[in-house]
This record gives sequence, C-alpha cells and structure tokens, in this order.
Amino acid sequence: MKDIVAIAFDADDTLWHTQHLFEDAQARVTEILHKYASPEKIRETFHATDKKNFRLFGYGVKGFTLSKIETAIEISDQQISAADIHEIVMLGKSILDAPVNVLDGIEEVLRALRPTYRLFMITKGDVLDQRNKIEKSKLEPYFERADVVQEKDAAAYGTLFREYGIAPEHMAMVGNSLPSDIFPVLELGGLAIHIPYSVTAHFEHAEQPVSHPRFHHMQHISELPLLALAAKN
Amino acid sequence: MKDIVAIAFDADDTLWHTQHLFEDAQARVTEILHKYASPEKIRETFHATDKKNFRLFGYGVKGFTLSKIETAIEISDQQISAADIHEIVMLGKSILDAPVNVLDGIEEVLRALRPTYRLFMITKGDVLDQRNKIEKSKLEPYFERADVVQEKDAAAYGTLFREYGIAPEHMAMVGNSLPSDIFPVLELGGLAIHIPYSVTAHFEHAEQPVSHPRFHHMQHISELPLLALAAKN
Repeated sequence: MKDIVAIAFDADDTLWHTQHLFEDAQARVTEILHKYASPEKIRETFHATDKKNFRLFGYGVKGFTLSKIETAIEISDQQISAADIHEIVMLGKSILDAPVNVLDGIEEVLRALRPTYRLFMITKGDVLDQRNKIEKSKLEPYFERADVVQEKDAAAYGTLFREYGIAPEHMAMVGNSLPSDIFPVLELGGLAIHIPYSVTAHFEHAEQPVSHPRFHHMQHISELPLLALAAKN
Repeated sequence: MKDIVAIAFDADDTLWHTQHLFEDAQARVTEILHKYASPEKIRETFHATDKKNFRLFGYGVKGFTLSKIETAIEISDQQISAADIHEIVMLGKSILDAPVNVLDGIEEVLRALRPTYRLFMITKGDVLDQRNKIEKSKLEPYFERADVVQEKDAAAYGTLFREYGIAPEHMAMVGNSLPSDIFPVLELGGLAIHIPYSVTAHFEHAEQPVSHPRFHHMQHISELPLLALAAKN
C-alpha cells in the first residue's frame, strides 16, 4: 500500500448490511407463492424477469419490487390476489424505509485511516435510495465525497479518479463484489481489497480465486488498518 | 441576454414530449378502475398515495407505477384482478420503453444558438430513465454536458453553475416548469425563460403571473434565437 494515497469504499454490504433485506423479501415472496410453484421455479422465473427488465429498470428496490410483482402474476397464472400483491408492494417499501445497520468495526477503521488517507465512498444504484442510505448511515463525515454511479465499470472508476485528481495506481478500492469493486479497479492499475459479505447477490457470482499482484483478500474490514498503516511506517 | 454566455435547457416537455405518456397511462388506469370509483376519487387517491410515497420513491416512472398499483388495490378494496395489475405494470414499462419525440423546431434552435452560446441540458429524475431518454433523443451532441439531478432547487443549480465555471448572472435557463426551471434560477440571479407545455404535471401547478426583470415568457422555443442572437449583435 505504500504508493496509495486514497482508499475508496463500496457501501452496500461493505460499509452497511443490505443483502439480508433482499433475501428476507425474496423468502417472503416465495412463501406467498408456494401454493403456485416450487421455490426453484419461483427463483428461476424471478431471475428471468429481473434480467429481462434490467434494461428498463436498472438496479434498485423499485425495479426489484416491480419485477417481483410481475413474477408473482406469471407464476400464479394471474390467480394471485390483490392482497398478496399489496404485501409485495409493502415489502419493497419496507426495504426502502429500513434502518441502515453499519457493519461491525467500520467506524473504528474509518477513524484509524482518516489521518493518513483520503477516503471516498463509491456506490451503485438508485440515486435517491443510495443518498437516503448514506444519510441514515451517518458515515458521510468520514468521506471526502460519496458518489453514486449507475454502473461500476472501469470507465466509471476512471472518471471518478480523475475528478478526485488521483492516478489509479495511487488508489485502493475496498468492496465485497469482485465484478463491481475489484476487477475494474485492477484493470485501471489500482489496488483492490476484497472483503466478501456472507450473503452475495445472485448477479455477482463471479467467484474465482484471484491471483494478481495488486489484489488483497480479507475476512474482515478490521484487518485493513494493519495493512494500510503498516505500509506508511 | 447581452451578459449571457450559456443557456441551459430542461429536457422533459421542453426538449421532448413526456407528459402525454403519463396522462395516457393515467387515463387507462382510470378506465381499468372505473367500476370501483369515480375518476375524481381515483385521481384524489392517486395523488395522496403519490405524495405519501414520494419520500421513498422520488421522481420517476418506477415509483409512479408502484403508486398506481397501490392506488388500484386500495380503490378496488383488494378486488382488482392480477390481470388488471399486470396491465398497470406493462403501462409503466411502456413509458420507460417509449420512443423519445423531440418537440418541433428544437434542433434548428440548438443549431442556431450553438456558435454563440455554451449549451447545457439539466434534467431531473431517475438517472437510468433520463440517460436512456437523452440517448434516444440524439440531442446530446448539441450540449457541452447533460446533467441529471435529484431536485431542481437553487442549491442544485448553484453546484452545476460552479462546475461549469459560469457565474449565475451569465446563465440563462429555459424550461416549462416555474418551480423547477424558473424560480430557483431567478433566485440565484440568473436569467429564466419560461416556455409552458400544453399539459402540465399536477405537482407543478404554481402558475402565477411572473414579474421579474430577468424573466422572459415564450409561447414557443422558436422565439429563443431571436431574443438570444439579437442581444449579441
């Protein structure tokens, strides 16, 4: 880390828990639909709907909820009740309205790194929803900037790093997703630190062993200050 | 306009038609629900739902569609069929997938202004949906930048004008909405040009006569080059 001057953090499932909200909603929808189809069939149909709608809906809870409703109608062959669909709408709203639970140890890590590194937050998704979560997390004061992008690819990271005025080889990115947080940053020549989350979204199953001189893997974010601060001494 | 160096344009219902898509969807939902309630009751219930959900959903088609579904379930006292709800989902998707129809005369106006003014597009709403519309409009090459903001208030305009490196008194903003395109820009000391659209969204009914030295009103955007270019000669 000795050439690194700034560390950027992914937010969902890196700084705060998110995935459990989607998993819980998914489980409840599967329960609602159990009289029409098997859990496997429900999951497959939802993935197909989600994939088909992605071009129009993008990432985010509102699209997730609309795709769930569409799936429920299809799976039930239009037999599902309005009351059940109402529950699906309310599940979506409850995700948007959920409190933000910061992962254990995050504030200590940010406090330890802040005197030595410029800190950034880079998150992907619906801007309003992400901004609401950033505010609820109360973590924004630790960061020089918190950016919401539509897609976490090399082009998007390149644009942000230029705005920060930092060359990619001086940037480290910390996140739970290999395709979103790690590979595009390695591609640019940055340093990437992967900290897997216990539950991983279905569209992020690109888990292969990574062997790269600028790649680090950690079990827990509390390992980060040791790596980051040792390099500076 | 003689101190003006740049002109920013609103997009929805200023550069291209949008409102008719929502009006048509609203009319079709009212038809679907006509057996449960009067058009007035449907409209009132939708406005109440929309207002209540705004904090979570923000602007955009996905939130509009979810609020329509919630309204339909409430209005029908949970009697509405899954087939009818499916149609509402499809109406939402058809808005997102609609072609973008640029207003008459826009390209001529942009072509006339471009040699003399820096041109910007400033639009509000769901980032993915707005980006898709910008791309479909094929108008982006006329603009130095096209920005999507969450709220069009004085703070948001102030941030953008600073990024452009242009003082507000050298900026003109063109748009159809008094609260979004006109008042915040006047507040900053900019010039504002109001071109009403024939159908105006219900949340933008702040129509009062505007009397302000930096306010202009036009019936049609084709009047803009005359005002803008005469000032430079």
